[in-house]
Amino acid sequence: MDLKVMNKISYGLFILTARDGTKDNGCVINTAMQVTANPNRIAIAVNKSNYTHDMILKTGEFNISILDESAKFGTFKNFGFKSGRDSDKMVEIKYNRSENGITYLTDECNAYVSAKVCSTVDLGSHTLFIADVTDGQILSSNPSATYAFYHSNIKPAASSAPKKGFICTICGYIYEGDTLPDDFICPICKHPASDFKPL
Amino acid sequence: MDLKVMNKISYGLFILTARDGTKDNGCVINTAMQVTANPNRIAIAVNKSNYTHDMILKTGEFNISILDESAKFGTFKNFGFKSGRDSDKMVEIKYNRSENGITYLTDECNAYVSAKVCSTVDLGSHTLFIADVTDGQILSSNPSATYAFYHSNIKPAASSAPKKGFICTICGYIYEGDTLPDDFICPICKHPASDFKPL
Repeated sequence: MDLKVMNKISYGLFILTARDGTKDNGCVINTAMQVTANPNRIAIAVNKSNYTHDMILKTGEFNISILDESAKFGTFKNFGFKSGRDSDKMVEIKYNRSENGITYLTDECNAYVSAKVCSTVDLGSHTLFIADVTDGQILSSNPSATYAFYHSNIKPAASSAPKKGFICTICGYIYEGDTLPDDFICPICKHPASDFKPL
Repeated sequence: MDLKVMNKISYGLFILTARDGTKDNGCVINTAMQVTANPNRIAIAVNKSNYTHDMILKTGEFNISILDESAKFGTFKNFGFKSGRDSDKMVEIKYNRSENGITYLTDECNAYVSAKVCSTVDLGSHTLFIADVTDGQILSSNPSATYAFYHSNIKPAASSAPKKGFICTICGYIYEGDTLPDDFICPICKHPASDFKPL
């Protein structure tokens, strides 16, 4: 089958934040959805390689800040292109804390949701967290940024890229080389070789 | 908290179809996401009151047809505003069958995905189906319809509605009466009273 069909599924974009002791961290996810209204619960799928994943598994709490169409590529780079294990991602970010003590972004987001994990599903590479929504606030009337909007309007065009290599069509990461290994996984967004195209 | 924050989460829109023996059926869902790339798996949340839900629980297979921006309100009415228990929803719909024998829509959709359930999570009002993607095809280059697009461009405006009552801000269903019971559930889209507003 043509794996490009998977790109037709629409998603929002979110900064998923957690707090463990005095350590704040966050990452970018596109996989969040409300799964029941009574009780108000959401499900998020998070790659196990993310430090934020481990913090949520430990603490059972998180926020999602819902990115809107004013979101800058720098915010995606900050939260998606490095690990919170060896950096403080919050240094250059404007944020507040919700009642659970976890950060949420005050800029480039139109709302945040606080949630408390009620169950987890091990999906192999990812964990699905099912969580009660405990709090939330609308921050602006800007339209939410969809994944399609990110690709068309936020992600820089690849025109300045080097000539030999492959670009991840998901996040823009560039693999330099003549051949992309079949089992290559994007170090940034964890998508497989099938989501890369030659430069 | 302001429950309107939940409306800031972006979704696509899908016709979820199943087949039990010779009976074809389908319903509208907005809750579908890819949860892992290796293996290629999706998760969908489906209200238990939907006949399609019971068919998937029994057969373990389904398709999702990904609605694009050409989708008509009539298609939402056909799949969302009546039950397949006492009607044949496929009568006026253009469709083909994928390899699993299940229908997919050939019009108003830009792709379909076939999937086989590998696990279920009981969420109370809904079941979360986690499923292996087994097949799929791109049908058009039209942009996918998001939930926000549906609200702005597909759902009819409420201007011709009667003067007394409450409208479901999710699907447009109108409850006629002076008072909306607190525990009211929309008979069409199953959303709670908090998603209604006075006409």
